[in-house]
Amino acid sequence: MISIHNEPQPTDLGDVRVANRAVVLRHVRLHAPCSRADIAAATGLNKATVSSLVTELLDRRLVRETGLTGNRVGRPATMLVLDGAPYAALGLQIGADDLVVVAVDPGGNRLLTWRRAFPAPTVSPADTVRALVTLARRAIGRVTGQGRTVLGLTVGVPGLVDTAGGVPLASGLGWRDVPLAADLRAALRETGFTVTVDTDANLAVLAEQRHGAYAGATDLVHVTGGLSVGAGVLAGGRLLRGGRGHAGELGHLCLDPAGPPCPCGRRGCLAASTALPAVVARLLPDATRDGPVTDYLPELDRIVASARQEEPAVLAGLAEIGRQLGHGASVLANLLNPEAIVVGGHFATLAPWLLPTARAELVARTLAPQAGGCRLDASTLDSAATALGGATAALATIEAGRLPAG
Amino acid sequence: MISIHNEPQPTDLGDVRVANRAVVLRHVRLHAPCSRADIAAATGLNKATVSSLVTELLDRRLVRETGLTGNRVGRPATMLVLDGAPYAALGLQIGADDLVVVAVDPGGNRLLTWRRAFPAPTVSPADTVRALVTLARRAIGRVTGQGRTVLGLTVGVPGLVDTAGGVPLASGLGWRDVPLAADLRAALRETGFTVTVDTDANLAVLAEQRHGAYAGATDLVHVTGGLSVGAGVLAGGRLLRGGRGHAGELGHLCLDPAGPPCPCGRRGCLAASTALPAVVARLLPDATRDGPVTDYLPELDRIVASARQEEPAVLAGLAEIGRQLGHGASVLANLLNPEAIVVGGHFATLAPWLLPTARAELVARTLAPQAGGCRLDASTLDSAATALGGATAALATIEAGRLPAG
Repeated sequence: MISIHNEPQPTDLGDVRVANRAVVLRHVRLHAPCSRADIAAATGLNKATVSSLVTELLDRRLVRETGLTGNRVGRPATMLVLDGAPYAALGLQIGADDLVVVAVDPGGNRLLTWRRAFPAPTVSPADTVRALVTLARRAIGRVTGQGRTVLGLTVGVPGLVDTAGGVPLASGLGWRDVPLAADLRAALRETGFTVTVDTDANLAVLAEQRHGAYAGATDLVHVTGGLSVGAGVLAGGRLLRGGRGHAGELGHLCLDPAGPPCPCGRRGCLAASTALPAVVARLLPDATRDGPVTDYLPELDRIVASARQEEPAVLAGLAEIGRQLGHGASVLANLLNPEAIVVGGHFATLAPWLLPTARAELVARTLAPQAGGCRLDASTLDSAATALGGATAALATIEAGRLPAG
Repeated sequence: MISIHNEPQPTDLGDVRVANRAVVLRHVRLHAPCSRADIAAATGLNKATVSSLVTELLDRRLVRETGLTGNRVGRPATMLVLDGAPYAALGLQIGADDLVVVAVDPGGNRLLTWRRAFPAPTVSPADTVRALVTLARRAIGRVTGQGRTVLGLTVGVPGLVDTAGGVPLASGLGWRDVPLAADLRAALRETGFTVTVDTDANLAVLAEQRHGAYAGATDLVHVTGGLSVGAGVLAGGRLLRGGRGHAGELGHLCLDPAGPPCPCGRRGCLAASTALPAVVARLLPDATRDGPVTDYLPELDRIVASARQEEPAVLAGLAEIGRQLGHGASVLANLLNPEAIVVGGHFATLAPWLLPTARAELVARTLAPQAGGCRLDASTLDSAATALGGATAALATIEAGRLPAG
């Protein structure tokens, strides 16, 4: 196996220090409580380097000391743990019928998860920005009231996001060419922290990598279920973004040129049969009788109730939607060969009825034996996976070994 | 844009030296002739570091001095260039009707390109290993006769390759579970250099990145044309391999559930309508009258001649094959958003008649505007792209800053 790095970069002692700071922080995150000697032994860094790095981290309150332990050979050592108290990172998501904000501390502990009903597809981009900013300000107020400094804020969008944080297209929302990151920064004014935008799927897979059932996997896909169907792809431990940041567009994969028409104008798209509006329209033909659905939760509850009562039409419909989901998963498995594909949103809610046919289809359509080792599972994260991933992403600079300002 | 590195690794001064050696070598490769001062100025490394690294590289004959230049302000400086003379790296490929070996020096200059007719699909794996080893030995003899040390040898296979260099499946060759790397190592005996196996597509995209029209691109796909259809994917400057090394399987993407049967047992696969045997069978119905085709070059020549004479059936067939190729390309563009997709093998030979419909289909089926910026072009490399990429891969350790043994 060959690893080609395209552009070797000059390295200096400052970079070494940053890299080693990241190593120390990671060790404390995974193995706390631990002593300086534990860190040196486990990482191979020398004790003086570890001591110097820990002093800095104590100074910025990224780690703290937590008393002595005598439970070992030799003299007692001062133990270290992550210090979550002085900082917070925020993530927000635009869902099918809600906005969600999550705040986490640098240890990844959730500080808050707030959700408000919001019929995003019927609201203009400008009003959506206002609603996001209102929710973000409340969360910022809460965490700063706890004495925390906000490190960053990331918003996840169900659509294409460009490298400047703009949204060229989010068909589920009816958006085109919305400069979302710029609008958010303008509305939030001088924040002193970074404000970024990413796709909901990219953020969800970051949440999976840190908090999900496949935490730590290097080749992992999260497929979002909701207004649209997207893939967040980790390949070799890194987010796969592509040249313009548009990688992971799965929803308009053509499953069948003779398939049903899709709102995008094509036929037979994966989203046309498996996105949340299509699933509701198929399984609950009466749901849109009084106009478009803006609150999906009760409709999903009705589908689950019908499936539990084994209504034949609903079970057959779910089995067929599962086959289509599995067909989409097989394209991911053939091209990306991930260790696992994790499905979120309504796919996770309906997983007991979708996954049997989806898994069979995945294996049947993947060339490598046993789907190349790829598992297909429901996300174990709740429906705030994107917001959690956004908060996780906002911690990335610190975790890469950069110190917070101040 | 967030870059999450999964596993920060402890860094020490040895790693720094390796990384900086790679930086110096790369600068010389791209900017030779250049002085030590040029390198220091361009890379930001201090002059003493550059001098010390250059001394090592001179010592191992990876660079050499090439006289003084006075064409600048200040005193004349000794200029450096890569020293290709003492080393060679080899790549081999198993093609549709031939075996090819390429040798390059560390500067990427081709030392030899040898081709021998070989009807791989009709030959057993054991006899194929024997033929590969015979060809490799001749090439090794040639370059060692020039006083060169062989740094490594990589063989490209049209099929799935696992992390141990085994081939679980190569349907175009009729292979299953062939431990190719182990068999090659056993047959070559004690070589003193690394012997590895990779997919033809992975090696071809490495050749593209170094020698092709999109050299230097970080998000790039090469689609192989031949017995099978595969994708070699560079994402963020690195080969995308997946958990078990099976990424890039494109040929059995289902374009149409009602499409023609594929030898793999499925229906409507991309390879069933666009791989070389399918193209020949469709456009030259008489070609297989006397048994299976084992020599494809004359058949391709006949197709080109018919297309040049504008035979309507051939032009219509090529336009349809182009649409299917473009459909496959759109799946790559949606999921990976590369800067370019480059097609090789018979797709490159037939590009004038395939690409017009392929490009239209790519744009029509990609959700991001203008196919997300993705270009679709014929490879400018000759039909030895995989072997050239294999030789390029065998240089990877040196280019990463490791010194050759001895």
